[in-house]
Parts: sequence; structure tokens; C-alpha cells
Amino acid sequence: MPMLIFSSGEGAVLIFREYVVVSKPISVIKGFHAHVYYSENNKNVAKKIREEIGQKFAVRLGQWHDEIVGPHLSAMYLVVFGNSEFNKLVPWLMLNRDGLSILVHPETGNDLDDHTKHALWLGEKLDLNLEKL
Amino acid sequence: MPMLIFSSGEGAVLIFREYVVVSKPISVIKGFHAHVYYSENNKNVAKKIREEIGQKFAVRLGQWHDEIVGPHLSAMYLVVFGNSEFNKLVPWLMLNRDGLSILVHPETGNDLDDHTKHALWLGEKLDLNLEKL
Repeated sequence: MPMLIFSSGEGAVLIFREYVVVSKPISVIKGFHAHVYYSENNKNVAKKIREEIGQKFAVRLGQWHDEIVGPHLSAMYLVVFGNSEFNKLVPWLMLNRDGLSILVHPETGNDLDDHTKHALWLGEKLDLNLEKL
Repeated sequence: MPMLIFSSGEGAVLIFREYVVVSKPISVIKGFHAHVYYSENNKNVAKKIREEIGQKFAVRLGQWHDEIVGPHLSAMYLVVFGNSEFNKLVPWLMLNRDGLSILVHPETGNDLDDHTKHALWLGEKLDLNLEKL
């Protein structure tokens, strides 16, 4: 327990104070990004999944990035979705990602935290170039 | 494209058939498990998170497993939750896991798939003893 000491004219006053770490509410999440990674060998899988995502879910699909972009060190495309889609899309990806690596992260306004400590991964966890965040 | 050949009395009939891989619907998911891993060094973090989970969410908390159990190669406790809690609990864990590794997996009736290809991870992905599944 940290101790704070304030000195007054009359002498030292000791204040013991317990610091309660307040958990972050999920209301700070403005939406989510899923980054679907692929290579030449499984781009057909990424294409099939992309088509189904576009048909089944309320999402915005980003363009194909065959060349690396931003912090991503593998080809990928982005899927942007709102909080209400989380419990539809993420479980569907869990069942149907078919070997692809997928990074899902919230949008809280802190890009570095969102891509690292706030992130979840389906499949193999890939390195990111954090200097780009 | 696979080719099926049926032979009739009159001669061979060739049928070309495109196999459409049907995606799995999330209705096969009966609920979810979260395995919260900890060590001696961060058991206090695991305790704080456990208390908050128990207060904030509709879950069943399993017992503390300081000794390894089942496929798990680290101390952990289990959190059992239903599909409707997924978009509350999982985002909260993303924001508040405080360095812990957490495995979240669906319950589809196939333990091996659920702990491997159906799984998602928050934090460091840990090895499992798959022979125990």
C-alpha cells in the first residue's frame, strides 16, 4: 500500500491511501478491426473467407494488400466492424478461418495498445513492426 | 475440381461436380470457455481479474488450478460463459487482462479442434498437451 506524506505547519500528517486500479469499461471501444493475413499459398482461402464475410456480416472490407503496409509484415486485408457484430463475426472466424492468421483489435484511440496488449489472435500470432504504430 | 464417374449399363457417365465447402454456422457453438493462465509472479493479477469477472459477468468460475491439469501446461482457472456473454466478456478481457495469457475457445463437441483451430488467444500463446484432449 503506497503511503503519501503531507507536511503541514503543525507537523507531519500521514495519509495512507489504497490505490484501486479501475478496470477499463468496454465503452471505450469504438469498433473493431480484423486483419486477415494470407500468403500466395492460401490467397484462395482468404478470398473465400472475404466473400463470405461480405455476404454474412455488417462490415466494411478494406482493399487487398499483397504488399506489406503499416505495421503488418504479411499480406492482409482489413475488416472493419462495429461492437454489435463482435459476437457474430469473431465466433464465425474461429470456426471458419481455415488456417489463416487473424488479428482482431479494438479501436480505443491508442493504436499501439490496440495492436498489442488489447489484441486477440486466431491462428499463428505474427510479428508486427511496432515502429509503424 | 474433383470428378465423379458413374458407370451405367449403357456405358460410362461422367459427372463433373464442384464441391462447395460450406462454412460452419456459429449455431454449433454451445458456449465458451476462457482459460486464464497465471504463475506465482502474477497470481495477484489473476485474482483481481477473477473477482471482477465474477462481479460483472454471467459466468461460472472454475476452481484455481495451481498444478497443471488436462492439456494445460501452466496454472490456470476456467471461466464458463454462454454465447450472449461473448461480446461483453471477451472485449473486457482484451482491455483488462493486464499481461495474462488467456485462451478462449468454443464448445462445439470436438475438444481437440476447439482448443486448437477454433481457439483465440489474448496475450502470449502457450503450448498445450494435445494428447490430453
